[in-house]
Amino acid sequence: MVEGKGISQAVISRLPRYFRYLGELRDDGVERISSQDLSRLMKVTASQIRQDFNNFGGFGQQGYGYNVEYLYQEIGKILGLDVEHHLIIVGAGNLGQALANYMNFEKRGFITQGIFDINPELYGKEVRNLTVQPMDKIEQCIQENNIDIAVLTIPKNSAVKVAEKLVGYGIKAIWNFAHVDLNLPDGIQVENVHLSDSLMKLSYTISCYENQK
Amino acid sequence: MVEGKGISQAVISRLPRYFRYLGELRDDGVERISSQDLSRLMKVTASQIRQDFNNFGGFGQQGYGYNVEYLYQEIGKILGLDVEHHLIIVGAGNLGQALANYMNFEKRGFITQGIFDINPELYGKEVRNLTVQPMDKIEQCIQENNIDIAVLTIPKNSAVKVAEKLVGYGIKAIWNFAHVDLNLPDGIQVENVHLSDSLMKLSYTISCYENQK
Repeated sequence: MVEGKGISQAVISRLPRYFRYLGELRDDGVERISSQDLSRLMKVTASQIRQDFNNFGGFGQQGYGYNVEYLYQEIGKILGLDVEHHLIIVGAGNLGQALANYMNFEKRGFITQGIFDINPELYGKEVRNLTVQPMDKIEQCIQENNIDIAVLTIPKNSAVKVAEKLVGYGIKAIWNFAHVDLNLPDGIQVENVHLSDSLMKLSYTISCYENQK
Repeated sequence: MVEGKGISQAVISRLPRYFRYLGELRDDGVERISSQDLSRLMKVTASQIRQDFNNFGGFGQQGYGYNVEYLYQEIGKILGLDVEHHLIIVGAGNLGQALANYMNFEKRGFITQGIFDINPELYGKEVRNLTVQPMDKIEQCIQENNIDIAVLTIPKNSAVKVAEKLVGYGIKAIWNFAHVDLNLPDGIQVENVHLSDSLMKLSYTISCYENQK
């Protein structure tokens, strides 16, 4: 297992994309790929690929290209995907249900083991293989199922308090879709998906393009 | 309107967050804020804030702090939020419905004017103020409503072809939730939200933290 020290956020951000492409090559039965071919496929330079991989010792054999299966496994390990993660989803609205239904997460070792909501009308609703439960069942679920990640798909006004409670229950990480920055103790990992921010970035690139014309 | 040339992706990525915080300060009636106070609030260094803003000419008056309303409006303009955008959502599953129901986009000038799906069981379903329509109504909707952004919330195996069709119908930008990289002509702006990639980054940070302990 390679340590993450000194590796830039930009490199880290590119790892899931490498992993995704390598997984597809592997599913297509490709055994070896040169950095040139990977470069063409992913539309990044071959030199970028080599530089990125050098952060982790290289992986490749000059002239022979990369062994796809090996590279896929190694990048998976760096991403911590060799360990199974246990998730709960807090918020069973459309977004929470969409995430619960997303089969690919399970394929990567992210097992969703509970979905919770504050709205009594949703209690008992079946979402894939899960049943929506009231919020006061969260603590028990976390403790019984060794849950490490909570997915937060609730409105921003309740997200901060709920996140603090989840930390108190022993959660290690929060995948935060609530439109607010959480302020949690050191050691609690947070990955934000602020959808409005992403839409604004798109608006920015449209605006830049229009101004260039 | 400031041009985007030569401004790094990292700065651009931070603009929506500034915009979000400034919007909240403004809603709370705050008129002025120093870079120190903004720094404490946002948990970035004051020097980072000043450097970021210097890319756009500064905005501030040394010693007096920033005028919140002015800064909010200016960053909004840079992000292209002074122009109304017209959206359609292609894919009326849970994720498409979640996005259609998200009121905040409208507040920022992103008006959703159609939602479409390939599944006949969804035709006619009301999602907020919209009715799910069949895919063959997309072209007409784009032309009649001056649609510039398509939100793609369909599975990856159909996403590439649908995206190409949308470009043919005159769309300028795609907000892509399909788990595939689109390869579209120059001038078509694409912003990807690859949720699995984000979850893998979270897994990476958990793994690094565990290894440090």
